[in-house]
Amino acid sequence: EDHLQLEYKGAKLKLNYVWLRDHCRTGDSINHLTQQRMVDSALIDPNIQPVNVAIDEGTLSITWPDGHQSEYDLEWLLSNTYEGKQHLQGTLEPLLWNLETLSASPSPSVSYQDYLTDDGQLSKLLHNLLKYGFAFVEEAPVTVEATLAVAERISQIRETFFGRFWCFTSDLERHDTAYTAEALGAHTDTTYLNEPAGVQVFHKMEHVGEGGDTLLVDGFHAAERLRQEDPEGFAILSSVSVPHHYLEPTIHTTGVGPVLELEPGPCKELKLIRYNMHDRACLDTVPMEDVSRWYSALRNLTRYIRDPASEYWVTLQPGRILLTYNWRVLHGRSAFTGRRRVAGCYLPRDDVISRARVLKVI
Amino acid sequence: EDHLQLEYKGAKLKLNYVWLRDHCRTGDSINHLTQQRMVDSALIDPNIQPVNVAIDEGTLSITWPDGHQSEYDLEWLLSNTYEGKQHLQGTLEPLLWNLETLSASPSPSVSYQDYLTDDGQLSKLLHNLLKYGFAFVEEAPVTVEATLAVAERISQIRETFFGRFWCFTSDLERHDTAYTAEALGAHTDTTYLNEPAGVQVFHKMEHVGEGGDTLLVDGFHAAERLRQEDPEGFAILSSVSVPHHYLEPTIHTTGVGPVLELEPGPCKELKLIRYNMHDRACLDTVPMEDVSRWYSALRNLTRYIRDPASEYWVTLQPGRILLTYNWRVLHGRSAFTGRRRVAGCYLPRDDVISRARVLKVI
Repeated sequence: EDHLQLEYKGAKLKLNYVWLRDHCRTGDSINHLTQQRMVDSALIDPNIQPVNVAIDEGTLSITWPDGHQSEYDLEWLLSNTYEGKQHLQGTLEPLLWNLETLSASPSPSVSYQDYLTDDGQLSKLLHNLLKYGFAFVEEAPVTVEATLAVAERISQIRETFFGRFWCFTSDLERHDTAYTAEALGAHTDTTYLNEPAGVQVFHKMEHVGEGGDTLLVDGFHAAERLRQEDPEGFAILSSVSVPHHYLEPTIHTTGVGPVLELEPGPCKELKLIRYNMHDRACLDTVPMEDVSRWYSALRNLTRYIRDPASEYWVTLQPGRILLTYNWRVLHGRSAFTGRRRVAGCYLPRDDVISRARVLKVI
Repeated sequence: EDHLQLEYKGAKLKLNYVWLRDHCRTGDSINHLTQQRMVDSALIDPNIQPVNVAIDEGTLSITWPDGHQSEYDLEWLLSNTYEGKQHLQGTLEPLLWNLETLSASPSPSVSYQDYLTDDGQLSKLLHNLLKYGFAFVEEAPVTVEATLAVAERISQIRETFFGRFWCFTSDLERHDTAYTAEALGAHTDTTYLNEPAGVQVFHKMEHVGEGGDTLLVDGFHAAERLRQEDPEGFAILSSVSVPHHYLEPTIHTTGVGPVLELEPGPCKELKLIRYNMHDRACLDTVPMEDVSRWYSALRNLTRYIRDPASEYWVTLQPGRILLTYNWRVLHGRSAFTGRRRVAGCYLPRDDVISRARVLKVI
């Protein structure tokens, strides 16, 4: 016997004794300010057995051979074990959308002044961003400073080799596709980094000309269609890591990961989509005998992404700042004429999620 | 037949036709400045067959049904296919070390002035960093500016919620273990971020007191011992993602990934070690029936990490700046008395590797 069995709220928990000793919540086993572990996991006796076990009023109490007393709230056990988690619902479920879903929902937006001064409006923005995968801040001053203020209200900026802040024009300063006037199909950004940027902030500061509308597609909606309709394709896209790259004379980065990356653990939720036809590098991570199945899965996923029913087109007026959750929502644009200037920056996903947690949005 | 077979330099390549069309190196299939793909992978006919194939002077030439001509250098095919890569050696092999190995090798260091002005010395620093997992810059001014100059010579800084630059003292400004005067066992940093920091820059600016030496341990050396001596343990630590977290009243980040993360592809090289007993959060990503094997593997890995033969202790004098490759080399410190101030920052792994590629260090 290396575990104790417990049933709580329908979950059957088999609690391994080493795990229990390692996760003791009491005494000097944990720093209660930081939740940092003070137990040395490697020094726990692999054959440890409790000398006493009691359950009383929602608390599991254990006495260990050295006299140490541990206590565990049963609710806490439910939230923090592989088996227990399967019985929980997240506090904020993403709303996977297509054009029809969005037509029935109000546009997720907050106004600039309220957003900057009112934590409730910041929470609403983060809620929108995590529920829909995108959100708007309206009525912002058409300045770089205001765009930065919107970004830094959430977290520090994620600086890349583009700098802290970028400005796309059609002036072809760089050779990357983003800096042309061509149409860009729906894609995610920075697939050429090991961890793609979490949130992208876009502000169209100026456009004198035609076209240049912004396309949004919910990558998780497309991926869930694939999971339903081509489970084998979903399995290969979520298990095989593929490389992406960015090359300039002074830059050569690579990012390698699955097109559909899943959360670890029992629920297999989507964590991240990497979808960028241009930046995908040589497919050298798949044995040639599996290559054909991989391309077949990519074709199916692409069909769902390019389905006109998936496409949400918006016109970004100066003053309307768009934030996309780049781990989920793809963006693109129609071709344009004239001078068009879009400024923006990236935010690190960890810190955006941290902010949402601290504000109890999730 | 969906592929053509080719033998080159001992590698048997089975080249799938869709893969070949997708990886065409000629004409308008690729942007030669950025190596961005101009082919739409999803639109390639799944049953595509060449109308002509020829191999001449190290080049494979294919004519496709629509008349498009593709050419592939055979060397390029060797470097960019799953099967071909297995026959290649990296240009810079990491030297996995223990104390004995290091005693036989010169200490990897460059001098501050040369490093700042001479690209050859920058290359040497990057070579040291990627070969040993750590490197020194000597004779630096004992200032924040000089420390930043050493960092920014390589790439932009990776800002975290600690800021762009941090300074540890024993003044207990924060509650995290790093900010105490206690001994810290060998660990990697920022396991509580989805992507841990790539490189850590340390500069001990001041110490009036005893102790406070710096410990370095090659995590990949320990991991390779585990791969040899406990293959099942290596398999579980490299396949199971485990969560880590950081908590303060205004911060709550999590990072989830395997203790031993491997490169995708055929060679199963180590990519990244996450090893932090304090910051590891609740192990809720492993079914309870596998938990016991996971802890057993962690114990074995820990034994190799804490083996005194693995430990390289250094005294950091002010002016001697240490860079560690945090994806590989663990650091720790002995307890100390008195006032001790260590300043430093993180660099993003992608950009460090990019710099090394551009300088042809790797």
